[in-house]
Amino acid sequence: MTKVVKSIKKVLKLINIKDGMTISFHHHLRNGDYVMNLVLEEIAEIGVKNLTLAATGIYPIHQPLIKKMENKIITKIDTDFISGPVGEAIVNGKLEQPAIFRSRGGRARAIETKELKIDIAFIAAPSADSAGNINGVDGPSACGPLGYAIPDAHYADKVIAITDNLVDYPLFPVRIEENLVDYVVVVDKIGDAQKIMSGTTIITRDPIGLRIAKYALQVIEQSGLFKTGFSFQTGAGGISLAVADYLHKKMKEKNIIGSFALGGITKFLVDMLNEGLLKTLLNVQSFDLDAVKSVKENPQHQAISVSRYANPKAKSCAVDNLDISILGASEVDTNFNVNIVTDSNGIIIGGSGGHNDSAEGSKLTIIVTPLIRGRFPVVVDKLTTVTTPGRCIDVVVTERGIAVNPNNKEIEERLINSNLPIVPISKLKGVAYQLTGKPEPIKFYDRIVGKVEERNGKIVDYIRMLKY
Amino acid sequence: MTKVVKSIKKVLKLINIKDGMTISFHHHLRNGDYVMNLVLEEIAEIGVKNLTLAATGIYPIHQPLIKKMENKIITKIDTDFISGPVGEAIVNGKLEQPAIFRSRGGRARAIETKELKIDIAFIAAPSADSAGNINGVDGPSACGPLGYAIPDAHYADKVIAITDNLVDYPLFPVRIEENLVDYVVVVDKIGDAQKIMSGTTIITRDPIGLRIAKYALQVIEQSGLFKTGFSFQTGAGGISLAVADYLHKKMKEKNIIGSFALGGITKFLVDMLNEGLLKTLLNVQSFDLDAVKSVKENPQHQAISVSRYANPKAKSCAVDNLDISILGASEVDTNFNVNIVTDSNGIIIGGSGGHNDSAEGSKLTIIVTPLIRGRFPVVVDKLTTVTTPGRCIDVVVTERGIAVNPNNKEIEERLINSNLPIVPISKLKGVAYQLTGKPEPIKFYDRIVGKVEERNGKIVDYIRMLKY
Repeated sequence: MTKVVKSIKKVLKLINIKDGMTISFHHHLRNGDYVMNLVLEEIAEIGVKNLTLAATGIYPIHQPLIKKMENKIITKIDTDFISGPVGEAIVNGKLEQPAIFRSRGGRARAIETKELKIDIAFIAAPSADSAGNINGVDGPSACGPLGYAIPDAHYADKVIAITDNLVDYPLFPVRIEENLVDYVVVVDKIGDAQKIMSGTTIITRDPIGLRIAKYALQVIEQSGLFKTGFSFQTGAGGISLAVADYLHKKMKEKNIIGSFALGGITKFLVDMLNEGLLKTLLNVQSFDLDAVKSVKENPQHQAISVSRYANPKAKSCAVDNLDISILGASEVDTNFNVNIVTDSNGIIIGGSGGHNDSAEGSKLTIIVTPLIRGRFPVVVDKLTTVTTPGRCIDVVVTERGIAVNPNNKEIEERLINSNLPIVPISKLKGVAYQLTGKPEPIKFYDRIVGKVEERNGKIVDYIRMLKY
Repeated sequence: MTKVVKSIKKVLKLINIKDGMTISFHHHLRNGDYVMNLVLEEIAEIGVKNLTLAATGIYPIHQPLIKKMENKIITKIDTDFISGPVGEAIVNGKLEQPAIFRSRGGRARAIETKELKIDIAFIAAPSADSAGNINGVDGPSACGPLGYAIPDAHYADKVIAITDNLVDYPLFPVRIEENLVDYVVVVDKIGDAQKIMSGTTIITRDPIGLRIAKYALQVIEQSGLFKTGFSFQTGAGGISLAVADYLHKKMKEKNIIGSFALGGITKFLVDMLNEGLLKTLLNVQSFDLDAVKSVKENPQHQAISVSRYANPKAKSCAVDNLDISILGASEVDTNFNVNIVTDSNGIIIGGSGGHNDSAEGSKLTIIVTPLIRGRFPVVVDKLTTVTTPGRCIDVVVTERGIAVNPNNKEIEERLINSNLPIVPISKLKGVAYQLTGKPEPIKFYDRIVGKVEERNGKIVDYIRMLKY
């Protein structure tokens, strides 16, 4: 028995791809992913139209997607994250219907509740056998735990593994079992694993960033949560990683052993695990090749599904057990709402990813951000796009002061009594505006090009087409 | 966050157990399982009625279930296997509605297609944390891969982990993720893991059994399938295990390296893996503590879900990739149909388990059985209960001759040209009847007490109430 089909074109015909279908992709290969482009190229040749692209992440490498939007092959996008030219194309109105931006957990929720129905899931498979058993940890394009692809594998009508490493049946270890997979297609390369690690996963060297990281560490130390058994998640931004680095040193110094670190996993966290400073890592996505290697080799480094990571409608999920999240922001308003989807020019530059999930789940959510970015204030009166609601944010740390959400009385009291430069958030905004001037309002058309959901599915904001 | 509830009684009230519900259990602890009895005791006290018991296996230790049948607490049973007094009670009419006997894969199919709807799954959890992450490989009652509980965890409305080894969050490794689990109850002991291994998983010493095993080995050698890369499954009966033992020696002698062995895993197969005679083991259930230990420690020894093992409606399953199955029988008829549910007295003594699945899936299915058992013929005109249809059976090996299903021309030709004592199956029946006399027909009432399904859900036979 074999499910191996000779080419992507052949499998698309076999499964009878049709106008209006929803096709899905996972982004564990990030900016090194070749699979989405390969599949869309073949789909373009077949000539089907009006597809929904349910991709967990879209990167600069996916620029050819813009042409498919223009040609009405892809008319809707459902995603957690977009960086690069596709985001710009969307705010320029090139996608027929509004893109939907979900959090990681929100996407898992939408799939499991059948709100997001996937017709065909294409799974970039670093290793597969002829029956469709898949793992993400072996082969030349090994990319880690495949956590984001798990709901797609379970709920899509048809599941296609695209691999560049076909091995004898039965593959081992197995991450996605054969009973879920319809076909296997072998291609030359599914991606370039070297590009999993990107500019956003390098620790900052900027002195402002390091100052912010140092403040954030002090907030953690003062929070009452920094003790043996604590857990945390950091974003993969340069400042967040610097916080992880400082945290590492402080844990060592104080002999504090953490319970788990969660989320996108980096070398920084792998080192902490290996030094015995963490009991386990819960890895839904590896952010570099050290994390890919470690999740394969170290049983204390666990691959988890995205539902276990963050699905708010699941019976529980790991983010809801978090003590501390250290996250980034593109903008923060004076009600502590955070924008992480668009920049101050109104261009799509990201998405919630796990931001919304871990901010809501964790006991203490710290936003680390410079107060101004380029010539724009980060703390503002009104966000370009609300992504994560202010009720989920506890502390905003900038190089010029730290603001505490007055809703979190406990942390407010703890920090007011510290040596840290605690200021009202309106003060941060004031300082920012003094430096940059009040930003010019961005000019938009009325046309909605994106809808931003909270993890529970509620729309928190709309993205509109840009007027230049 | 914690899902820990103080007692089984409390959790039953919390989830509002009601008359007519379907409750499920897995049997990885086999005759050492305490969980089903503990739960049924509490249910009896609460006083709900007319429950369906969807238990993957029922053992002698579950004798207290009979009282629950008499009291109409349990009025229907849906299972893959029953050994011990419960089977006798059913043929004596003590269960209100007919019991349904499915194969392993058939049960997974029924759950995944929603034909079998489980309201509450009780999962005996050798290790669990407060959020309900579960594994089967740690703790005092470690029992292995929990493969049969996977569909229950995914599809039941409520999922309750019952554990005697609650560990700090987050547990690792994890077999069933927290997002699927509602509550965790801690009890003194979920079972006695020493009793996983039973009389049926000991290699035969009987010279007749050993002769049969030797013949079976020769059939395998002549089959054309015995070469590097071949795969097999053996039942856990004493003769099947003897075949595995002979196979082991022959593989070593001929330097043949198998691809995988499948199913219930025993020390015999673990030894073959460790000696490099097999590439991997696919373990849905550990039959002894060596197999429990190995599936924890050896990454080449893989835990698989029952859907991957045998679900005929899955996109594929491992039994369909099998070369050879060596299976037992309680009776075989002259059309090669096999009975593995009842004995020659009409009493329920087993069930398909994976019999139907691997017989249908594998290229070559060999039944190993003595020609007579007690004073009864095994090869008969008419089965007491059809379990596995004759079309799935290729060869029947007895101590007094080997019969080949004429539908399998290739194997017939190969074996006819060997030195083996190949005879028509009617001849085997004739010899048996000569020795035992023609068996007296069993006396039944019309009342149906059991329905036996093929793995695809088709009813192949009925079990009737016994008249003594």
